[in-house]
Amino acid sequence: MGDAATGHARKKLALAELAQCFGLGLRGDPSILIHGVATLASASDGQLAFLANPKYRGQLATSTAAAVIVRNEDADAATTPVLIAQDPYAAFAKIAALFETRETHPAGIHPGAVVAAEAVVDPSAHIGPFVSIGARSRVEAGAVIGPGCVIGEDCVIGDGCELVARVTLVTRVRLGRNVRIHPGAVLGAAGFGLAMDAGRWLNVPQLGGVVVGDDCEIGANTTIDRGALDDTVLEEDVRLDNQIQIGHNVRIGAHTALAGCVAVAGSARIGRYCLIGGAAGIVGHIELCDKVTVTAMTLVTHSIREPGEYSSGTPMMENRKENS
Amino acid sequence: MGDAATGHARKKLALAELAQCFGLGLRGDPSILIHGVATLASASDGQLAFLANPKYRGQLATSTAAAVIVRNEDADAATTPVLIAQDPYAAFAKIAALFETRETHPAGIHPGAVVAAEAVVDPSAHIGPFVSIGARSRVEAGAVIGPGCVIGEDCVIGDGCELVARVTLVTRVRLGRNVRIHPGAVLGAAGFGLAMDAGRWLNVPQLGGVVVGDDCEIGANTTIDRGALDDTVLEEDVRLDNQIQIGHNVRIGAHTALAGCVAVAGSARIGRYCLIGGAAGIVGHIELCDKVTVTAMTLVTHSIREPGEYSSGTPMMENRKENS
Amino acid sequence: MGDAATGHARKKLALAELAQCFGLGLRGDPSILIHGVATLASASDGQLAFLANPKYRGQLATSTAAAVIVRNEDADAATTPVLIAQDPYAAFAKIAALFETRETHPAGIHPGAVVAAEAVVDPSAHIGPFVSIGARSRVEAGAVIGPGCVIGEDCVIGDGCELVARVTLVTRVRLGRNVRIHPGAVLGAAGFGLAMDAGRWLNVPQLGGVVVGDDCEIGANTTIDRGALDDTVLEEDVRLDNQIQIGHNVRIGAHTALAGCVAVAGSARIGRYCLIGGAAGIVGHIELCDKVTVTAMTLVTHSIREPGEYSSGTPMMENRKENS
Repeated sequence: MGDAATGHARKKLALAELAQCFGLGLRGDPSILIHGVATLASASDGQLAFLANPKYRGQLATSTAAAVIVRNEDADAATTPVLIAQDPYAAFAKIAALFETRETHPAGIHPGAVVAAEAVVDPSAHIGPFVSIGARSRVEAGAVIGPGCVIGEDCVIGDGCELVARVTLVTRVRLGRNVRIHPGAVLGAAGFGLAMDAGRWLNVPQLGGVVVGDDCEIGANTTIDRGALDDTVLEEDVRLDNQIQIGHNVRIGAHTALAGCVAVAGSARIGRYCLIGGAAGIVGHIELCDKVTVTAMTLVTHSIREPGEYSSGTPMMENRKENS
Repeated sequence: MGDAATGHARKKLALAELAQCFGLGLRGDPSILIHGVATLASASDGQLAFLANPKYRGQLATSTAAAVIVRNEDADAATTPVLIAQDPYAAFAKIAALFETRETHPAGIHPGAVVAAEAVVDPSAHIGPFVSIGARSRVEAGAVIGPGCVIGEDCVIGDGCELVARVTLVTRVRLGRNVRIHPGAVLGAAGFGLAMDAGRWLNVPQLGGVVVGDDCEIGANTTIDRGALDDTVLEEDVRLDNQIQIGHNVRIGAHTALAGCVAVAGSARIGRYCLIGGAAGIVGHIELCDKVTVTAMTLVTHSIREPGEYSSGTPMMENRKENS
Repeated sequence: MGDAATGHARKKLALAELAQCFGLGLRGDPSILIHGVATLASASDGQLAFLANPKYRGQLATSTAAAVIVRNEDADAATTPVLIAQDPYAAFAKIAALFETRETHPAGIHPGAVVAAEAVVDPSAHIGPFVSIGARSRVEAGAVIGPGCVIGEDCVIGDGCELVARVTLVTRVRLGRNVRIHPGAVLGAAGFGLAMDAGRWLNVPQLGGVVVGDDCEIGANTTIDRGALDDTVLEEDVRLDNQIQIGHNVRIGAHTALAGCVAVAGSARIGRYCLIGGAAGIVGHIELCDKVTVTAMTLVTHSIREPGEYSSGTPMMENRKENS
């Protein structure tokens, strides 16, 4: 199955072509043909590997890859032909995309979908089976709505968006262009707005929406609540991993990435180019400036006004040692 | 999109009417017409705002709202007409509800739904497309089952419940009246009951169900496992945010609220009027008395017998400071 | 509802039969008929209970169960007939299974399912309503695909698997035999592979798949990303509770169990017979050897090379005590 990349690939490209196309250095036979990509440890004939994490540097000497993408300073350690890049991982990402086979989605509305009369679907969009689309929602050119998605009322799915499968946009969710959302994600559910009144909870109406900028990606089973009054906002190119919870009226700046299982409470604001580690928590009504890094499982309890790396927590220990 | 509240609103109400209807004080022109609600920072002509969080008190002086709901002690700081409430947030919640437009759900079963012959659906209930309802399940008066919900066998959905979309009730789940469940929630899955036997895991049958009291709310992608023998129980008016995990045989007391991403392990018991902060964890087989507050990301490792506020964890620090 | 076990049970078995069938000791009247199971606290006529957790030992004296499964050393404390087992919980699991009634799933494809022409479904498999199955996927003998599941392209569902409802296998997911997956789980979504390139995120193609061994169980709303190049792998008999996040290229050894809400970052490797407590986190690219136990909400930041129990975090305190 790890060979799927190879199995599907029909394309063959010479190292020289790859070097020229992506502006990379080249050492070794330029005519070697590449037909797929693989890890340093598993790559064999015709497969290109890469070295980005220094942890795996030792594998350079034994790799049976057809060629390896490396930084200049690692080139001498390789026993294979090399492509030389400033950022081998980014170069690899671009080359791997050439060998990726993606499911095709024919234009049109599957007969097993239910589209409200007042909804508008561009003829070039793909609407899969078991999809429902509510009143006043709009699906724009080239968008793909996979099986089992539920689009409520007053939503917009921009050009080239992909909702992979079983995504829910509850109401008033507006996606920009080329947004990709993975299965099980829920955008636009009513935020957790409660007031205690005479010993019982009272729901605070959640009248806002969710706005997602161009090129954002939203992971599987991630939830983004709609705003109470104003909107919940993701600026462009925000990347959310799986099982993230974004409370109502949060705002996340452009190019920020959150790893899996992060929880962001209501009305928090996160700046641009931030990196939030897995399962970190950010309390409500605080602000993180641009370029803040938060490590895994850290609880951010107050605003951060200086770029830098922040952590909370204690080191892991073996329990018998703690007790002795 | 934050204007959706305004955009949809057709109703106009004079400040005097609002004051009288909700028992509020009034300072300023009683004939001012309100047609929507907004935040202090964004409200303009015809929009009502509120001040509950003291953090935003400075905005009173510059707000262009038509009127603001405040506590008595904040009234002098306002430059707009004010409605005076003991609890401005609760008053706001009630007034905002007047301006909320909610999707309407016609009675009847969508032709694209599959209902078992032995299931009973009240004629006033709404069953959306792509819903399946299993044998011996019952949907009561006025209940709304949105698109893509799966109701297994032996479930009860009480009067006025709303399952927004893509909710799963696996088996033996009984909801009281007016329970609202958000997309992706799963109730009644088999709990994590395992016994090790001769080096392999053995499943312990999960024979109980889930009982949810009146007026509970359950967030998006939250999971509540069914009991192993007895039931998993939520008493009335329990409020669960998104992505919460409730293990088998947990019992949660009335009026308790859990913020997003909390995990409660099997057979834990939580009292009434408790507040559990985001991403907190509660280990199995312990008991929290009434009126316990647990702060975000705290791990509760033993029973709590006194009301109060409890925390674990260490403060967040910038990493270079830790190292110096 | 806790009585469902009893309510559905038609079978009656004498204590003597149970003792003989499962190799248990017996004290008391061998002809007593058992028709169901219940907890020590709630069991009554005809119901069998068990004592495994010493916390509940005091209930032995007052239980009105027809009989109780106990360890030899607890037998004297019981006032009821007893079955004596080395591991009462495992013995209980086996006996309870006799009284479990499970939903039946007729063979065949529901007319409200959509199966790609190039997919293969064994005639003995059950495909429920609102299921879609993609090209080149295969459903093997006796497998059950419940309502609303989405199976993408190039997947294999082995003999006897059960996908309860609303499960998504995105692409290149291969399940062994007798794998059970609970609602809302998503396997095979694109992992979180990102490279920063000229100030914008670049997606790293995720070309691998997910391989799940025989007898694994995967909880509700759990997510398992597909590998970037090689596969993400669960060996046989791995047990994952609800809302777990498994990053791309993780490998989990046979017979390991993870409690709810655990997050495992990309390329981490967990050994065999490990037990990972609820909401624990495991960072990427590290390795845990066999037989490691990690307690709830611990962050594992480096490889563990010795079996044992590991923890991080600080004890919970009442907040006023911290401040005094």
